[in-house]
Amino acid sequence: MSDMKISPFAPAQFPKLPPLAGFEMATAEAGVKYKGRTDLWVLLGQPGTEIAGVFTKNKCPGAPVDWSRKALNIKTNDARCVIVNSGTANVFAGQKGKDAVVETAHGAGYALAVEPNAIQIASTGVIGVPLDANKLVVQFYKMKFHPDGWEDAARAIMTTDTHPKGATATAKIGDTTVTINGIAKGSGMIAPDMATMLAYVATDAKLSQEVLQELLNEQVGPTFNSITVDSDTSTSDTLLLMASGAADHADITRADDPALADFREALNGVLFDLSQQVVKDGEGISKFVTVKVTGAVSDASAHRVGMSIANSPLVKTAIAGEDANWGRIVMAVGKAGEPADRDTLSIWVGPHVLAEGGQPAESYTEADGAAYMKQDEITIRVDLGLGDGEATVYTCDLTHSYIDINADYRS
Amino acid sequence: MSDMKISPFAPAQFPKLPPLAGFEMATAEAGVKYKGRTDLWVLLGQPGTEIAGVFTKNKCPGAPVDWSRKALNIKTNDARCVIVNSGTANVFAGQKGKDAVVETAHGAGYALAVEPNAIQIASTGVIGVPLDANKLVVQFYKMKFHPDGWEDAARAIMTTDTHPKGATATAKIGDTTVTINGIAKGSGMIAPDMATMLAYVATDAKLSQEVLQELLNEQVGPTFNSITVDSDTSTSDTLLLMASGAADHADITRADDPALADFREALNGVLFDLSQQVVKDGEGISKFVTVKVTGAVSDASAHRVGMSIANSPLVKTAIAGEDANWGRIVMAVGKAGEPADRDTLSIWVGPHVLAEGGQPAESYTEADGAAYMKQDEITIRVDLGLGDGEATVYTCDLTHSYIDINADYRS
Repeated sequence: MSDMKISPFAPAQFPKLPPLAGFEMATAEAGVKYKGRTDLWVLLGQPGTEIAGVFTKNKCPGAPVDWSRKALNIKTNDARCVIVNSGTANVFAGQKGKDAVVETAHGAGYALAVEPNAIQIASTGVIGVPLDANKLVVQFYKMKFHPDGWEDAARAIMTTDTHPKGATATAKIGDTTVTINGIAKGSGMIAPDMATMLAYVATDAKLSQEVLQELLNEQVGPTFNSITVDSDTSTSDTLLLMASGAADHADITRADDPALADFREALNGVLFDLSQQVVKDGEGISKFVTVKVTGAVSDASAHRVGMSIANSPLVKTAIAGEDANWGRIVMAVGKAGEPADRDTLSIWVGPHVLAEGGQPAESYTEADGAAYMKQDEITIRVDLGLGDGEATVYTCDLTHSYIDINADYRS
Repeated sequence: MSDMKISPFAPAQFPKLPPLAGFEMATAEAGVKYKGRTDLWVLLGQPGTEIAGVFTKNKCPGAPVDWSRKALNIKTNDARCVIVNSGTANVFAGQKGKDAVVETAHGAGYALAVEPNAIQIASTGVIGVPLDANKLVVQFYKMKFHPDGWEDAARAIMTTDTHPKGATATAKIGDTTVTINGIAKGSGMIAPDMATMLAYVATDAKLSQEVLQELLNEQVGPTFNSITVDSDTSTSDTLLLMASGAADHADITRADDPALADFREALNGVLFDLSQQVVKDGEGISKFVTVKVTGAVSDASAHRVGMSIANSPLVKTAIAGEDANWGRIVMAVGKAGEPADRDTLSIWVGPHVLAEGGQPAESYTEADGAAYMKQDEITIRVDLGLGDGEATVYTCDLTHSYIDINADYRS
């Protein structure tokens, strides 16, 4: 994918992610599939580092997901480790794939002096090709670990991404300033049903696994679970939240501790930023689209209506064609299977009301809509007029480039 | 859409649909939107003609659907009439749209001497533009009715279709030979949740509405409800089955009457043929795809897994790229939300087993898959290895032409 154009929504530069007390990392060129670039990232957390995670709900998950989900629930006081390779997803690779995960965990455990069950493993790339774990294991002995290197890490885990994705924030817990760093990858097969392809968020805060997990569960909905590129849910989706505990603040034992207010907001900012970077790097994107649904019978209903709009090929191609085709939005609302009433439905693009009360709005002109749709960032708002439920989801348009990328990804 | 290439899967010619005793029809150039082509079809059934129908489950149906659904349940001994226009769908057109339907029904009722409630109305085309009913009503007075004209009818109701679609069959009921004629239109916004865009099937058989409805309900599942072009469910889907009763055979009062065996089979043939023509004229199609799912926990589960595969943008673009990318099939199986187990899953394209027992098949070579994928008609088979449930669904690939067609359909 070397000739791929960088997403027009890529940040001007990778943000400056500072070293995080309690974490060290390294990347390497393991040569799993790609040549001349890094494809392996290892993150080490000091003993006592806590990790919480959410994984794909796809019923055919990869062997690395199976391993990591299980390992997350095994208590250990050892150092914690995250290993990610790109180039193969090691999904649906049979016994060889399962063996490769075990070999990676044990190889890393020996080389890095970490208990294998303390290791989170993820692989991303083509499905159906088993990982050659030996390519990773030989690297574990050679890698030089540093407290810095988040941008290198974000680059090593890329596949069809057109740029590395990172975000950082600081927060006060009591009088102590803690830092949150996060990186993510993902561009296609993005309709996370728990988290996106791969995202890693780390902090030096001192938080228990239970607190971390509760924060993740609370925040994954409006961030990673509210983006979609192509309605296809990956077999490898993983979002980890890690805390080294190196910061010196009062103990936090509950997620609803008021001392977490600033941290919660900062974490939400990092998760939101990363998830936006993923959808804004959606395969073939030319327009970034925000879909706001209000007036639904519940928030969950609003979310499903929003996703129905955001995943509709006809809506997405209309946006690619700069056409304020609200008829297709009506169709997508109606096909969602959620309570909806044509006659209480209103639709806007940007500031322009296109349709209200079951018919085209009197004030609307095609010229207004056409002018608005030329923008790079489009907001569609739908009010169902039924209740107080609301949700916002984010997507991109469906363009020729999506087909170019996916009609020959493997070749 | 005048420069559109005809689907490579279009039949060589429109089949010869014979006149049907008890029916007359006419077409006209009403000029609703298109110039220089017919856009109005009226079908008259003799008094006593019975009509059964299934309509879209989209929650934002068009005013014509509302009218027709209601009218279908009003008993009348008068002649029955079907009116279809292309050019506007008269959907989400507010009070004007509702008024247009009433005006059409009453205008036709007066001009053609038919009770308005005996009239089925359908409109197809752009959403959000109210129908100018007067354009139709003036035609009702001028139209010349003939027992022949099914091909003209199929042409008059086309929108983005690249060719008219028809099918015919005969069947014996007792010693009497009856005929079944059907026409359909549809190419995009095809993921029928009850029936396709528009399909009309008529017979001279003497069957009650109850029998017709039961036959439709029984047969719509494996035919129209098993095709998908783009996962988008139209606001106008309508399938009508009409019987004039002109044929002279023994009374049939129950759908399970053994005398209906041949008719049932012939009807299924017509519905299947029409639904296949719709998906084979899918917007931008270059490959026709049959997805067979076996070994599911139930037929319904198999159907949902099949639809998840058939609607996956990643699967569809891989097929467009002639790539036997079974990893994406695994993904689509897993995201369906139905019971599935990676380790009992097997996948074929045509005669080649690609994956079995949770890993790539030993016998499979990429060369075999690549050669098979060059064919125009592709069969994907998935065995879930869990139970006896099975289903077959039909779709097309996702190509640049789909985007061309839909990024500027309104312009």
